[in-house]
Amino acid sequence: MRILFLGDIVGRPGRRAVKELLVSLREEYAPELVIANGENAAGGTGITRQTADELFGAGIDILTMGNHVWDQKDVYNFIEEEKRIVRPANYPPGTPGRGYLLAHTQSETKVGIINLSGRVYMPPLSCPFRMLDEILPLLRKETPVIIIDFHAEATSEKMALGWYVDGRASALIGTHTHIQTADERILPQGTGYITDVGMTGPCDSILGVKKEPVIKKFVTMQPVRFEVAGGPVQLNAVYLQIDPDNGRTLIIKRIQIFKN
Amino acid sequence: MRILFLGDIVGRPGRRAVKELLVSLREEYAPELVIANGENAAGGTGITRQTADELFGAGIDILTMGNHVWDQKDVYNFIEEEKRIVRPANYPPGTPGRGYLLAHTQSETKVGIINLSGRVYMPPLSCPFRMLDEILPLLRKETPVIIIDFHAEATSEKMALGWYVDGRASALIGTHTHIQTADERILPQGTGYITDVGMTGPCDSILGVKKEPVIKKFVTMQPVRFEVAGGPVQLNAVYLQIDPDNGRTLIIKRIQIFKN
Amino acid sequence: MRILFLGDIVGRPGRRAVKELLVSLREEYAPELVIANGENAAGGTGITRQTADELFGAGIDILTMGNHVWDQKDVYNFIEEEKRIVRPANYPPGTPGRGYLLAHTQSETKVGIINLSGRVYMPPLSCPFRMLDEILPLLRKETPVIIIDFHAEATSEKMALGWYVDGRASALIGTHTHIQTADERILPQGTGYITDVGMTGPCDSILGVKKEPVIKKFVTMQPVRFEVAGGPVQLNAVYLQIDPDNGRTLIIKRIQIFKN
Amino acid sequence: MRILFLGDIVGRPGRRAVKELLVSLREEYAPELVIANGENAAGGTGITRQTADELFGAGIDILTMGNHVWDQKDVYNFIEEEKRIVRPANYPPGTPGRGYLLAHTQSETKVGIINLSGRVYMPPLSCPFRMLDEILPLLRKETPVIIIDFHAEATSEKMALGWYVDGRASALIGTHTHIQTADERILPQGTGYITDVGMTGPCDSILGVKKEPVIKKFVTMQPVRFEVAGGPVQLNAVYLQIDPDNGRTLIIKRIQIFKN
Ligand SMILES: [Fe+2]
Ligand SMILES: [Fe+2]
Ligand SMILES: [Fe+2]
Ligand SMILES: [Fe+2]
Ligand SMILES: [Fe+2]
Ligand SMILES: [Fe+2]
Ligand SMILES: [Fe+2]
Ligand SMILES: [Fe+2]
Repeated sequence: MRILFLGDIVGRPGRRAVKELLVSLREEYAPELVIANGENAAGGTGITRQTADELFGAGIDILTMGNHVWDQKDVYNFIEEEKRIVRPANYPPGTPGRGYLLAHTQSETKVGIINLSGRVYMPPLSCPFRMLDEILPLLRKETPVIIIDFHAEATSEKMALGWYVDGRASALIGTHTHIQTADERILPQGTGYITDVGMTGPCDSILGVKKEPVIKKFVTMQPVRFEVAGGPVQLNAVYLQIDPDNGRTLIIKRIQIFKN
Repeated sequence: MRILFLGDIVGRPGRRAVKELLVSLREEYAPELVIANGENAAGGTGITRQTADELFGAGIDILTMGNHVWDQKDVYNFIEEEKRIVRPANYPPGTPGRGYLLAHTQSETKVGIINLSGRVYMPPLSCPFRMLDEILPLLRKETPVIIIDFHAEATSEKMALGWYVDGRASALIGTHTHIQTADERILPQGTGYITDVGMTGPCDSILGVKKEPVIKKFVTMQPVRFEVAGGPVQLNAVYLQIDPDNGRTLIIKRIQIFKN
Repeated sequence: MRILFLGDIVGRPGRRAVKELLVSLREEYAPELVIANGENAAGGTGITRQTADELFGAGIDILTMGNHVWDQKDVYNFIEEEKRIVRPANYPPGTPGRGYLLAHTQSETKVGIINLSGRVYMPPLSCPFRMLDEILPLLRKETPVIIIDFHAEATSEKMALGWYVDGRASALIGTHTHIQTADERILPQGTGYITDVGMTGPCDSILGVKKEPVIKKFVTMQPVRFEVAGGPVQLNAVYLQIDPDNGRTLIIKRIQIFKN
Repeated sequence: MRILFLGDIVGRPGRRAVKELLVSLREEYAPELVIANGENAAGGTGITRQTADELFGAGIDILTMGNHVWDQKDVYNFIEEEKRIVRPANYPPGTPGRGYLLAHTQSETKVGIINLSGRVYMPPLSCPFRMLDEILPLLRKETPVIIIDFHAEATSEKMALGWYVDGRASALIGTHTHIQTADERILPQGTGYITDVGMTGPCDSILGVKKEPVIKKFVTMQPVRFEVAGGPVQLNAVYLQIDPDNGRTLIIKRIQIFKN
């Protein structure tokens, strides 16, 4: 089972990177499923029907989200019935949309996908550890191949959740910091892990947005307006090869592509 | 000018990693200066005279610190006169120790070393951006080769400070998250940059400490006692090659070594 | 139904204040039930068997807790079977102790008591709003008289929870900031409310602890050791008169007593 | 020297409260100076030329600010030359506006007024303790009567700064939490103190804004739009009587007025 996971796609440059680079990635890795984090797809913050469709049209199969999921009002128009988008499962009961789903691939193998948000330096959603204890058995009835997007800030919380699910999920992929980490590994019980897959968007930027306003904010403590940066783009991703029979990750490989 | 920078050394296993692995790194890179972050050197938290000496004896030339600098009371006995240790420069005036220093290497080249702490999700020290505006001119009178250890949590603050000093320092090396990032680069004006160099300590751990108490804390919200983990170790570092005439980084290379 | 509620009792001076002042309060208000927050009873942080017994012996009927509940290891020895102590109900399932209880008074009237922790600027426990939706119906089967100790930092969260339970509980009493607020009122549906009842402990102090170390910490950013202050004491409390038939608060009155 | 200090004026209802209630307060207290916190004057967030003038016209002499000072873009048009507005003095050097000023009253007595922001649970501005050490001597050259508006969240930081300036300022008045505290006192060296003076605005609200969106946000974790509430209003203030010769506070008195 071959899966590609792309980090937070930031605005138009991020969508362009997907459109221009995913084709060759498909050729190289022949993924049966392409997952991407889309919480910054629309202007750097949130997602709209149009930006989601643009990404699905470019070959993304499933979009995961994060703390920015509600930033564009348009999301309420489609998140409930859109079956290819997951938002953090640990939002309160009654929240629109779904926190996990079962993706059907061309092969027989189904893939469970879970989105969760961290709580360290982030809003107090439900406990992601306990949430996994609830969701994993439901998905494991259907398939041993389960991918978790853990959208979190603190490295401690991310590593802790990785160890916590080792052997119960195929991979735990971190998102949110927009910087790829170099700690990809396969944990002892077979769970693929990386603290953060990094973002897909403008290279010469601060997490995808223009540098000057961010620096101004730090130096002057004045409110500023963030804007998606221009220029060359990068695509950050991981490739996973998973044993479809037992769900164990066989290969995890970091991917970084830069393009003018 | 060849420099090695090792990430946060965690406890006895981290010190062991330095002692057992630095020799071969020296052979491979022939560094004229070896800098390491030592804020977790003593039992995972803080530093003592003995652990500092152990690291100096193992070939570390300069130790940088971070938010854990004051965790061991012993530090107050030596940080003032110990000229090979820097603690974050943005502590208030009157704080024991120094925030920057000038290291003399075997070659003629002097190296300025600055330690700073971030403020996002961290205590409200003085502004690291403005602090650099003060310190950089002082050091640049002595040498163009200047290394900054920016000990910070948020990727946005780290990238912002990197862009802010581009062309004014040789390299800005992030520490504190204990996870190496894969975003090492040389910024357009010649400043080497990495968001985090990662830690030096036990592999099968959460940031160097035993997994079980950390997971217990997240799941039960009960206070726990953290303990440095055992088992195989890793050393995370970056190698920098810097033009001694203009201080620009020519090469930045991530290093990860694992050892049973 | 007459109830006295005393704010966070801090260390030995706080316990002394209770012992020396509760007698005359009893005479003045003839309370059928005396509730007090005991999270700082032992040395300013946490509670022990001995300090709890001292407070029960001094006339406290029920002790509520807060974020400091686990600070003294001794608490694990008795919190499970001690039926007069409540800790925040929104700790995870499986947490020792109970989050709500039913107190029996000399009169026929039973009193439901709930302890909850806020989440703004505090650890991410379960949602206190939803927790109340679960607990209130259980207690209301037994009695209409229900007192909530909401141990929280942010005034917004406290006022929001007050309005949220208006008409469903007799009173929501805030604790944790150790400073009494002057906003006691009866909300339109009959719920008595105060943002914070204040603490019971040393007057010339910062929230009960000695001033100098706290100031030193703010000015120098160095770690310090907090110590309970000495000198004159104050007792902060509220008196509630509640209609036992419908649980509505009829009178809410702030109390402050100072003693050398 | 008689001074009135009004807490955070929230939106149109807050301005109405000032216009309708200040007259009788003037009659009762005959203040020589009326200070008010205006950070929420315009629509609940920030201040504009028009709302500032409305408040000056209603009898406010000096407006202090807080974390919301920059929320209305219009503020940049007048804060630099408007000599009756102070914003927190611990913003970085180069920030528009002033952090302290000298007010001239009808009597001969001049009054120094300082605005400072806390840093606990707030942005990392410069240290308010050290800032006071810088500003106080400058103002004390001109007058012994000095009023500090400390706009801060945490009760510990507020009490600590109160004790820190005892004897060096006439009064330290807390703002920001929008809830009046009942701990007004005169510290041993003569500094009047209250942790928070409370807000001036709608009674049936959460800190001045409509209840429903705030509760919705806590319960659902969805973004909401806050709106200033309607209905009856309250005015929260303190009255200070200060010895003009030595600057010591002689009387501090809390004021709460409600009006339909
Ligand atoms: Fe993102
Ligand atoms: Fe995010
Ligand atoms: Fe560290
Ligand atoms: Fe650190
Ligand atoms: Fe307390
Ligand atoms: Fe507390
Ligand atoms: Fe305010
Ligand atoms: Fe404020």
